[in-house]
Amino acid sequence: MDASSGPVIALSGGVGGAKLVLGLYRILPPDTLTVVANTGDDFEHLGLTVCPDLDTLLYTLSGQANPELGWGRADETWTFMAALQRLGGETWFRLGDGDLATHVERTRRLAGGESLSAVIDSFRRRLGIGARLLPMSDDAVRTRLETDRGALDFQDYFVRLRCEPAVRRLHFAGSETARPHPEAIAALAHPALRAVVICPSNPFISIDPILAVPGMRDTLRASKAPVVAVSPIIGGQAVKGPTAKMMAELGLPVDATTVAHRYADFLDVYVADEADADAVAGLDMPVVLGPTLMQTLEGRERLASLVLETADRVRK
Amino acid sequence: MDASSGPVIALSGGVGGAKLVLGLYRILPPDTLTVVANTGDDFEHLGLTVCPDLDTLLYTLSGQANPELGWGRADETWTFMAALQRLGGETWFRLGDGDLATHVERTRRLAGGESLSAVIDSFRRRLGIGARLLPMSDDAVRTRLETDRGALDFQDYFVRLRCEPAVRRLHFAGSETARPHPEAIAALAHPALRAVVICPSNPFISIDPILAVPGMRDTLRASKAPVVAVSPIIGGQAVKGPTAKMMAELGLPVDATTVAHRYADFLDVYVADEADADAVAGLDMPVVLGPTLMQTLEGRERLASLVLETADRVRK
Repeated sequence: MDASSGPVIALSGGVGGAKLVLGLYRILPPDTLTVVANTGDDFEHLGLTVCPDLDTLLYTLSGQANPELGWGRADETWTFMAALQRLGGETWFRLGDGDLATHVERTRRLAGGESLSAVIDSFRRRLGIGARLLPMSDDAVRTRLETDRGALDFQDYFVRLRCEPAVRRLHFAGSETARPHPEAIAALAHPALRAVVICPSNPFISIDPILAVPGMRDTLRASKAPVVAVSPIIGGQAVKGPTAKMMAELGLPVDATTVAHRYADFLDVYVADEADADAVAGLDMPVVLGPTLMQTLEGRERLASLVLETADRVRK
Repeated sequence: MDASSGPVIALSGGVGGAKLVLGLYRILPPDTLTVVANTGDDFEHLGLTVCPDLDTLLYTLSGQANPELGWGRADETWTFMAALQRLGGETWFRLGDGDLATHVERTRRLAGGESLSAVIDSFRRRLGIGARLLPMSDDAVRTRLETDRGALDFQDYFVRLRCEPAVRRLHFAGSETARPHPEAIAALAHPALRAVVICPSNPFISIDPILAVPGMRDTLRASKAPVVAVSPIIGGQAVKGPTAKMMAELGLPVDATTVAHRYADFLDVYVADEADADAVAGLDMPVVLGPTLMQTLEGRERLASLVLETADRVRK
C-alpha cells in the first residue's frame, strides 16, 4: 500500500486544533481521517453533559462552526439564555439554542446507557461527516487546575474566570482508571497508518489529557507511523487562549521549543512557524518550518498538506 | 372581613382555564389569587420534566403567552428543534428555545432535591407574578388513557396522535398515593375564602386529575366558600380541544349539563353560556348565564367579574 493513501490520526482539542483537522479532512480521501478528541474539558452544566472540544469538531467538520465567535454554531440564536436569565438560572456558560440540542440529545442518550463514542458517532453521521470522531475515552476524565485562587474545575477556570488565575499544576481526574477508546488504540497500531498528527492545541489542557489516558502515550511511542506535532506557539505567543500564559506560570520557556520537549518521547518531527526559526534552531529533533497561522480555509489546507508531506518524508 | 376582599382559589388546566385565571388575576387585589394547577399532563421528554399546564399559567400570567399559537411563549424561536431534528432526535413535541429554559432549569432543580412547588414558586416570583401558583401535588400523577388504539400516555394521545384515538376510560397513575399540596388544602379551608372557581378547562383531563388527588374533592365538598364552575361547553361544542369529542366517546350527553353533573357533589353555582340556556334549564342547581367565550382581555375580565359576583351572591 502506498503510504500516501493510508489512514491518518489527529489528536485535537477544540478551536485551534479543529482548524488543522478541517484542513486534513478537506484534503484527505473520504474515510481516511480519525480524530481523537480531548474530553478533559467536558462537564455537567444545567444537568446536561457538555463536551466543548468534541462539539467544536462536530460543528467545524459539518460546516456549522461560528466564524465570528470562534466557538459555537453559525446562525445561532440565544433565546434560551435570555429566558434562563429571567428565571434566575446560571448564565456564565453561554449555550446557544442550536448548541443546546447537542447537549440535550447527548445527555438523554447517555442516560439511556449509550457510550459517549456511540452518541458522537451517530451525531457525526447525521451531520454528514466522513471522518471518524472519537473521544479519547468513554470514561469521564476531568481537567482540574491548582491555581493561586485555589483548586478549580476546568470551565470555572476557563470560562467563568476567563483564565485569570495563575496555574500551578494540572491534573486529570479519572485518568488513572480511564480506558483509552479501543478504536483509537487500534488506529494508532494500524500497520498502514500514514501519520499521527498532534494538532496545534494547548499542550497542557488539550493534548496532555489525551496523553494521560493509560496506554495512549505508550501506543504513540510504539507507533511505527511518523508522529508530527504542529506548534501552537507563533512568534513566541499563543494565537488564542492561555497557552503562553500557562507556560510562564508553570515556569517553562515561553517559546515553541517547550511544546516539542513535552512530546519528545514520541515525536518524529516538529512543524513550527517560520517566525520561530531562531527559537527552534537548537531542537534535538527534525523540524520543518512553515506558515502555521490558519486564518483562511486555504491556510488550513496548506498547513495540512505540509504536515502530511512532512510525515511522508520522515517515513522514507 | 368583607367577603369581596377574601382570597380566591381557581382550579385550572392549561389554555382555556388560564384565560379565566388571567381575568381573575387582573381584577383581584394583589396576592388574593391562588391557582391550583393540573399536573396530570406533565411528562418526561428528552430527559426533561415538562409541565404544560403550569407553564401555560406562568406564561399567561407574566404576559409571555403566545397569542397566535395558543400555547408556548411569545417571541419564541425554534433553533433547538431544527438542530435536534438534524441530529435525529424526537421532534413530535415541539419545544421552543425560550420554553426550554423553563424545562432545563426545572429539571436541574428537581434533580437537586427541590419540590415542584418550590421551583414553580421561584419561577412565578422571578416572572413578577403576584398570584400563588401551586401544582395540585408535588407527587407525580400521570394521566393515561385507554383508547381504541390501546393504552396511551397523555402526550402521546394529545400531541403525537392529535386526540384522534377514541377514549374509553381515563386514569390518573399515582393519584392513589399522591398527597395534595398542603397549601391548596389550607387555602380551600381558609375561613375568609371568597370563592373557589373551577375554570372552564376540560373536565376529564384537566379538572378530574386535580379532583383525583386524595383529599381534594372532600375538601371542596366541605368548603364553606361558594364553589363556582364555568362551563367549557359553548353552544353544545368545545371552544378548543377534545372536550366534546371525549364526552361522546365516553357515552355522555354532549352539552353543558354533563360538566355540571360531574361537579354536582361540591358545586354551589354553575356559570354557563347564554347560548346554552335551553340545555341547562333543567339543571337541579343554581345556574347563571353569561358570555363565556373569552376572545379578548376584556372578555376575560368580564367573565371573571361575573364569576366573583355570582360567588358573592351565593354566599349572601
